[in-house]
Amino acid sequence: MIVQKYKDMLNVKSVIRQLSEFATARGEQIGYENVFDFSLGNPSVPVPRKFTDAMVDLLQNHDPMELHGYSQSLGIPAVRKKVAGSLNKRFGMNYTENHIFMTTGAAGAIAHAVRCVTQPGDEVITFAPYFPEYQPYINLTGAVLKVVPANVEDFQINVDAFEKMLTDKVMAVLINTPNNPSGIVYTTETIQKLADIMTAKSKEYGHDIFLISDEPYREIIFEGTDAPYVSRFYSNTLSCYSFSKSLSLPGERIGYVAVNPECTDAEYITNMCGQISRGTGHNCPPSIIQLAVAEVLDLTADLSVYETNMNILYKELTSLGVECVKPGGTFYMFPKALEEDAIAFCEKAKKYDLILVPSDSFGVPGYFRIAYCIDTEKVERSLEAFRKFVKTEYR
Amino acid sequence: MIVQKYKDMLNVKSVIRQLSEFATARGEQIGYENVFDFSLGNPSVPVPRKFTDAMVDLLQNHDPMELHGYSQSLGIPAVRKKVAGSLNKRFGMNYTENHIFMTTGAAGAIAHAVRCVTQPGDEVITFAPYFPEYQPYINLTGAVLKVVPANVEDFQINVDAFEKMLTDKVMAVLINTPNNPSGIVYTTETIQKLADIMTAKSKEYGHDIFLISDEPYREIIFEGTDAPYVSRFYSNTLSCYSFSKSLSLPGERIGYVAVNPECTDAEYITNMCGQISRGTGHNCPPSIIQLAVAEVLDLTADLSVYETNMNILYKELTSLGVECVKPGGTFYMFPKALEEDAIAFCEKAKKYDLILVPSDSFGVPGYFRIAYCIDTEKVERSLEAFRKFVKTEYR
Repeated sequence: MIVQKYKDMLNVKSVIRQLSEFATARGEQIGYENVFDFSLGNPSVPVPRKFTDAMVDLLQNHDPMELHGYSQSLGIPAVRKKVAGSLNKRFGMNYTENHIFMTTGAAGAIAHAVRCVTQPGDEVITFAPYFPEYQPYINLTGAVLKVVPANVEDFQINVDAFEKMLTDKVMAVLINTPNNPSGIVYTTETIQKLADIMTAKSKEYGHDIFLISDEPYREIIFEGTDAPYVSRFYSNTLSCYSFSKSLSLPGERIGYVAVNPECTDAEYITNMCGQISRGTGHNCPPSIIQLAVAEVLDLTADLSVYETNMNILYKELTSLGVECVKPGGTFYMFPKALEEDAIAFCEKAKKYDLILVPSDSFGVPGYFRIAYCIDTEKVERSLEAFRKFVKTEYR
Repeated sequence: MIVQKYKDMLNVKSVIRQLSEFATARGEQIGYENVFDFSLGNPSVPVPRKFTDAMVDLLQNHDPMELHGYSQSLGIPAVRKKVAGSLNKRFGMNYTENHIFMTTGAAGAIAHAVRCVTQPGDEVITFAPYFPEYQPYINLTGAVLKVVPANVEDFQINVDAFEKMLTDKVMAVLINTPNNPSGIVYTTETIQKLADIMTAKSKEYGHDIFLISDEPYREIIFEGTDAPYVSRFYSNTLSCYSFSKSLSLPGERIGYVAVNPECTDAEYITNMCGQISRGTGHNCPPSIIQLAVAEVLDLTADLSVYETNMNILYKELTSLGVECVKPGGTFYMFPKALEEDAIAFCEKAKKYDLILVPSDSFGVPGYFRIAYCIDTEKVERSLEAFRKFVKTEYR
């Protein structure tokens, strides 16, 4: 018989998807260029030309048997070595290829990292606001996601609540910095504090607590932002990366787990990911995508548009009296709604063709997310809509 | 703490991998062209040129934002529609895009199909000889794999043993035809018998029993072989396909689940796969690979070499007195070893630079697998080695 648990999940509609569908339908009426669709976190700048060239070169000038042959389940050794080298150079780490497990994006990375360090029933802690997909990502592994309430003052970590929730049952802590949806980057002070607490609690409980650091927005950092490399602060860190945002390749599903070389049982964890992949059906990411990405590890798409868009929106919204913690990276911002009910707020915004995501599914009431990964020209045109919306509805 | 179950799996060495490593090491001594390496099931003919051209065209002539954008988690709708159309045309089915879930190869397909129809603790039945990876594939979902002993007479199904083992606890039956390792194709009679038994038992137990049909070798069929399309014979069939072997693309990880439209809850199963993928971290296969494969759905690599190789080996081995059920497809054959202990037999074969895989890990003692996906020229040169081996060791 079919499994009811998965069937039941079909009844839960994604708020973001519904908004995106609304935006598309509205676009068919008035032209999509007139819908200020801030719903989806899809990169809006093209992949670097060098990636395309690398793909074409592989296809045209390499033996197809070798090119399209099986990758090892951990990933192609030469690719893993290059990833390690790039991380070492950029972040002063000591990874080798033995610490890198290539995955189909960050979702694949998290699926394997969590299974390495949690048994069914163990708890995993994350912090609001958080990416809603963490619920199925974690809970479907058999672990149980617990959410630390947001520190709405600056969207850094709510330390007191974290310390209370970090019981003996917690085997892993999942963070996402730069953060979706807040755009906030955890400071060195925050990461150090988090690491200190986790070190103390690991000692108290007599077992390791792993830090799973979800870093798809790692390369999208705005001027003047303190953006520490998380794994430097806590040995038991598994970094989960995706090239989706940095290279504008979300459909190509490529990323990795990087296991801190100083971590407990580091020599086993990468290989354990390979074993886990036999049960998830993951096995390895496509060979050609691994090989092409390895040619552009130190490149990104032109990410500057996101900072430009953020500055335009931040200036306008704050001048309209909307409170917002200024993002340090990503292509999201997370202002406070002008009424308590964010869902009602975002519903009203639709009348002005502003498609905003209410904060409830991110684990915080009363805020909304703007995904400003759209053309700057459209961001500029949206300002008039924001002005009308605020002045008509809230004055 | 790291999970002991996965750590323990690292101690189990794959027999096939060890043999392959031995072959590589021996190749370094005497030249790999002199090692008759029949260990690995890697395609030996290149991908059709049209696939490469389609990839290059996508890269050079399509908007990179659209090309590399997120696919829906079920796969790109236009691709799913084309897959359905191709299957309908070839096998007289009535699939629509709503019955197709795109996956990263057959491993991904099985991981999702099994989770759709089994709860942890439920039993899944398969038939010896079987692909050894079925053990982790099934058991890591939480279900329990049970193996029906082989019918060594013709490697069709052992019907009596199957009927006894098909208890109320069995929620799915997993078959692999054309079969790795035997090369045997289940006949229409076999599939009909299997379907009849499953229908009767479903009725008796008052619950569905799903047939999961793993079909990566579906297109590699030899002359005169009766090769029925499994799903036509049993409504509750989930067909798991991979393009790895038919298009010689094993590293690119692309395949699908095709849900029989007449199956119980067919309208839910494909979408449930999408929900399951949030927990496996699968999400969707790479967009560009989906799009390129959709251009070559009715093509294959030039697969004729496999039948040529099979005929050469079959003739020589039978003339040497080695018993073998003649393969109807794949690039494997599964002859009877010349002594009871297949491991000892294959160990002796190494002295003649013949790399053969003992049958024990396929769930049958006393046989060996030959993967003849190598150049015909090398197959021909191997005959002298086979002759020497048999005459020296067993006369």
